[in-house]
Formats: sequence, structure tokens, C-alpha cells
Amino acid sequence: MLHSIERSIPATFAAMKVSVIGTGNAAWHFAHIIKLGGHDLLSVWGRDTAKAKAMAHEFGCALPDSPIPEVQPDLVLLAVSDEAIQGLSATASGNWLMAHVSGTVPIDFLKNERRGIIWPVQSLTAGIPVDYANVPFCVEADSAADLELLSSLPSAFGGAVYRTTHEQRNLLHLAAVFACNFSNHLYTIAERITDKAVVPFETLHPLIEFTAQRIQSISPSSAQTGPAIRKDALTVMRHLELLRDEPELANLYRYFTQLIQDTHS
Amino acid sequence: MLHSIERSIPATFAAMKVSVIGTGNAAWHFAHIIKLGGHDLLSVWGRDTAKAKAMAHEFGCALPDSPIPEVQPDLVLLAVSDEAIQGLSATASGNWLMAHVSGTVPIDFLKNERRGIIWPVQSLTAGIPVDYANVPFCVEADSAADLELLSSLPSAFGGAVYRTTHEQRNLLHLAAVFACNFSNHLYTIAERITDKAVVPFETLHPLIEFTAQRIQSISPSSAQTGPAIRKDALTVMRHLELLRDEPELANLYRYFTQLIQDTHS
Repeated sequence: MLHSIERSIPATFAAMKVSVIGTGNAAWHFAHIIKLGGHDLLSVWGRDTAKAKAMAHEFGCALPDSPIPEVQPDLVLLAVSDEAIQGLSATASGNWLMAHVSGTVPIDFLKNERRGIIWPVQSLTAGIPVDYANVPFCVEADSAADLELLSSLPSAFGGAVYRTTHEQRNLLHLAAVFACNFSNHLYTIAERITDKAVVPFETLHPLIEFTAQRIQSISPSSAQTGPAIRKDALTVMRHLELLRDEPELANLYRYFTQLIQDTHS
Repeated sequence: MLHSIERSIPATFAAMKVSVIGTGNAAWHFAHIIKLGGHDLLSVWGRDTAKAKAMAHEFGCALPDSPIPEVQPDLVLLAVSDEAIQGLSATASGNWLMAHVSGTVPIDFLKNERRGIIWPVQSLTAGIPVDYANVPFCVEADSAADLELLSSLPSAFGGAVYRTTHEQRNLLHLAAVFACNFSNHLYTIAERITDKAVVPFETLHPLIEFTAQRIQSISPSSAQTGPAIRKDALTVMRHLELLRDEPELANLYRYFTQLIQDTHS
């Protein structure tokens, strides 16, 4: 069994010199977090030089020719795709703390002596600032001091920072795929059905929002409603009849109905 | 193909005398809507006499011995379980408009000359008032005049009222099961995984809320993210490895991954 994770509260503030590698959604948000937190954003580097140039201009920092600038950073954030982490970390290794921002990549993919991970449990889009106090962050590092350094970035905004193990971060990532990526696909299916009915999909917006908000006050297991948990065989039969020309959706419907009934039996 | 539904805007306000049959969640909310809308709530009747008494007391109306009070109502609302609609409608039939509030039961289950349906597309809990301007209602009736009567109930609050056919209402109900009941089961699975990781489920609250809100501005199909749509085989493999002791969840994971890839190929 895994140990319960702790909420990290760094003791002191120390401004860091930070270099960001990457020009995507996460890179933009970490550049934003660093600036807002009063740290020194030394540089932004990316293989997409046009994007890197735009970001360096936006955040008023250097645009070095290589991943690491001349001024030595305290922290290098590898905000790049999972596949690029290993290769870039070898190129950008040095005396600094190097951290990636992925929900799944293990820490030993980083080819550096001082290693860490800082993963935001939120979907972030470049150019759209969010309230970082409302974004949970998972942090990992080899040393307690580096854990402290990483934790200080988001905790400056007052949000929750969790010290996770590799397995905890991976399980949380998996749980997010079920709760969010797969739910979004269910919304996609619902839109296909409302399109078929020539009913605006917006009709479902309030109920979708309610369903997502309800589980903030009660456990999703207690919040379950609908024909499956009620064992309402007549409604299930009517629904399957509506799906007579959609065998794949009928299968998924039957599968969920069974899962819900098994879970709550 | 079904006809596009219209948003109904009643022309005039006329106070109605209304009898509510039922004492559950929907009955409570319709009693509330009737009072708030300036109508005359004549009576509440239910087989659960204690609950009926409490509701009649709360809303200051009569508690008749039989479903219909002595004063003749303009409208009788059958806010009871699907199974009870047919039987009760025979007992309570008369010269008035009779309407049920179900998302699936056909209009001809009502044993009355003047028939209608008013279905709120929202999960409503007795005792917890909601902003009815944010609840979409589907209405059906045999005559245009009765459609107008039913539409006037929720539209007094400024919310959307849709004139649906039986098939449209049923498809919308089915879509809600996919988007809400099944999503809630995915939240339940996510909580099981975070429990296993000994990570608080709250860590996922902001992402779940974001996912539900995002589809209010972009189509869920455009909003899809995650390893399945990215064809990120390595992450999918890591996730399935985490589910090695949960063959049922691994199946569901594979099924969704395939569905997402088929939908977006």
C-alpha cells in the first residue's frame, strides 16, 4: 500500500533563475507561473524557433541558441512532449535542478544529477491564464531540498501541492483519463444523439455541469442515479430500442448498465 | 428525420389552479414552481401520507383524501414514478389538463382526454431550490392551447422551454444517461483508482469541472484530449499495466481507447 501523500508548504521564498525548454501549452503556463511568482525567467528555448521567439518576446526573456543560456540557471523546466524528455535532458544537463512536467514519465528518464517532476493536474492551454490557486500540482524529486524548490513554484499562489511517488502520479493520471478523457467521449456520444434528435446539445449543459459539480460535495458512488442503478428494466429496454441502428453504442450502454449494477449490488 | 424543436414563448400570463400528485423530488419542485409563478396550488396528494402532509404544510395547500380535491383544478401534475403514471391517471381523470413529468413515458399512458408532459432536463432534489431559469424543460401536449398552458409554468422564470416530440424527449433522455449517469460511473471508477493510490479524489475536482465546462464553449468532439486521441501507445501501455489486477477496468479502458480512435480517425 502506498503512503498517503502530504500537502507541501514551503517555509521560505527564494527567487530562482529558471530556463524553460518547450513552447507548448505547459511551457507557456510555467513561464507565466515563474514570472507571476517573482522568479527570474532567464530563457525560453524550443525546436520551433518561431514559437520560442514569440514566447521570449511575450515574457521578456532571452532566446538562446542552445537549450541552456549563458547565465547558469537554478532550475531547468523540460516542458516538452513525453517522447522528447529523455533526449533533451541529455543535451541540457548540468549542475542545476532539472524537472519535467509529465503525468506519466518516470524520473529516471531525466539524464541529470539533480532531478525532479512537477505535474499540474489540469488541462492548460497556452495564452489562457487560469487561477493557479485552483490547480493541484504533483511534485517529485530525488532530494528534499529540490522537492522544496519545486513546491515553492505553485504554492506561491496558495494552491495545493502534493508530494507523490511515481506510482501515485501515474494512478492519478490514469484516474484523470477515466474521469475526464472518457467522460468527454461520453459527451461526444450524447451530442451525436442530440444531433440525431435535432435537439440542441446545450439542453444538456446544465445537467452535465450539475453532475460534475455534485461530486465535489458527495462521493460519486453515492451520487449515482439513472435507470441502471434503479434497475429500471423498462427504460433500459426503451433506450436500447432507440439504439437499434447503433450496435456499438448499444454495446457501450449495456456494458455501463452492467458495470453500474455490479458496482452497486 | 425529426423536426427541429422550437423554443416556446407564451404570450400571456394566466394564473392556474393546480393539483400536484406525488411527494418526491419532482413533486416538490413543481409545487415550488407553481407557487413562485403566482399560480394557485390547490392540493398535494400522495400515497405516502406523512410526506404529503409535510408538503401540504410547507406549501400551504389542501391535503385531500383522494388525488383530486373538491375545487376543480385547471391542471393536474402527475409527479410520480414512471410505473405509477398509468394507474393514477385513471383514478385522477377529469375535465382538466393532466400532465406527467417523466423523460421516457409516452403521452398515451395518461388516461385523460386532455394530456400533456412537462419534463425538466435536470436532476432535482426535494428541498433544494434551484435557479429555474437555468433548467431546460421539454413540453408535449395534444392541443396547442394545453402546450401553451404547460409552457407558461417554467417560462415565467425566463428559462428555455422546448416543444418536443416523444422521440426527441426519449433521445434527449438517452443522451443524458450517456453524458451524466455513465460519466458519474467514470468518476466512481476514478475515485476507486485514487483510493488505491491513497491520493485524495479532490485532486481531480478542478479537472472534472473544467472538462464539463469546456463543452459549453466548444463541441465535445473538438475538446477530446488524452492518450487515446494522441495515439500515445506508450502511455496506453503504462495505464494498462497499472490495471493488471483489474481486468474489467482494463477492458473498459481498451474499449474507450478504441472508440475514441475510431471516432477521430
